[in-house]
Amino acid sequence: MTNLTILGTGNMGQAIASVAAKGGHNVQQLGQEDLATAVTGDIVVLAVPYPAIDQIVEQRGDQLAGKIVVDITNPLNFETFDSLVVPADGSAAAEVAAKLPNSRVLKAFNTTFAGTLAAGTVGPLTTTVLIAGDDADAKSQLASVVTSGGLKAIDAGSLKRARELEAVGFLQLTLAASEKISWTGGFGVIS
Amino acid sequence: MTNLTILGTGNMGQAIASVAAKGGHNVQQLGQEDLATAVTGDIVVLAVPYPAIDQIVEQRGDQLAGKIVVDITNPLNFETFDSLVVPADGSAAAEVAAKLPNSRVLKAFNTTFAGTLAAGTVGPLTTTVLIAGDDADAKSQLASVVTSGGLKAIDAGSLKRARELEAVGFLQLTLAASEKISWTGGFGVIS
Repeated sequence: MTNLTILGTGNMGQAIASVAAKGGHNVQQLGQEDLATAVTGDIVVLAVPYPAIDQIVEQRGDQLAGKIVVDITNPLNFETFDSLVVPADGSAAAEVAAKLPNSRVLKAFNTTFAGTLAAGTVGPLTTTVLIAGDDADAKSQLASVVTSGGLKAIDAGSLKRARELEAVGFLQLTLAASEKISWTGGFGVIS
Repeated sequence: MTNLTILGTGNMGQAIASVAAKGGHNVQQLGQEDLATAVTGDIVVLAVPYPAIDQIVEQRGDQLAGKIVVDITNPLNFETFDSLVVPADGSAAAEVAAKLPNSRVLKAFNTTFAGTLAAGTVGPLTTTVLIAGDDADAKSQLASVVTSGGLKAIDAGSLKRARELEAVGFLQLTLAASEKISWTGGFGVIS
């Protein structure tokens, strides 16, 4: 059993909590109103929008030292839906890793809509969570949580691949926003 | 019925030719040995690896004026499998468009492995071709060819989205090369 903390109570935070709960893990879910409550999880999911990351780091950076920290953000310019707000050769995950040098930072869950995490399926496929990161043990621990919750997990490579994962997430969001796909659809992975 | 020319006789060129043939279209397929043969198609698919694009443009650029030109490349550094060789804020498709100002350039077929084009399916899903480009009529003509051949087509937005399509193609290639997925699998699209 793994102890997870999910920072954020929106649809993604709820969906990830439900996956972890299905797997029998301990879940601590904290919203902004729980600022006085310390993080207890060994894996901490930052289930907040990209613009909220800086505040989280400021408020809880010290508590995140030594922990596995999961960035799930899609750093879109949501006004234009036409670009990301991170540098072209970087990623939100790389920024998080730079801000939390004492944490093991992973990118995950940004290519799976909340509905597909909660349902466990995307169309006829089992939902697959793509995980990128530089620490093999951290990726393995998160993959165990994901698979115990009934989903599939694929190691997508080093944290450098977060750039491609964020491109996938970006493209998927533009397709849903333009009604080419639904919010319960998107990219599925066929092994 | 549409007249297509496919420049390239490799596995991707053959698979795209088979899709077009299934749809009842006229297909002219030309290899490097057919240099003296003029392009007759209204849609011309550059089914060659990225490093061969410059030569094609040099040899046949004039013939491509006025035509719909489809770039299918994944401009990977195939030695490292760790980066693309195009600028971080650009794409192979943008480069092709810059070199062929009198053609209507589309990005397509770079997110579908040859096996999934030839079979028409990826796992339990119909294979979906994502098409990006700045000319709606050109995208519509290519989509008609794709759907008449039994596949699905999705308009993925402007040619600027080629950057994200190339990220998807890059990620998919790294997953297959590291045996996380097979060459008959990959990303499927659930509407």
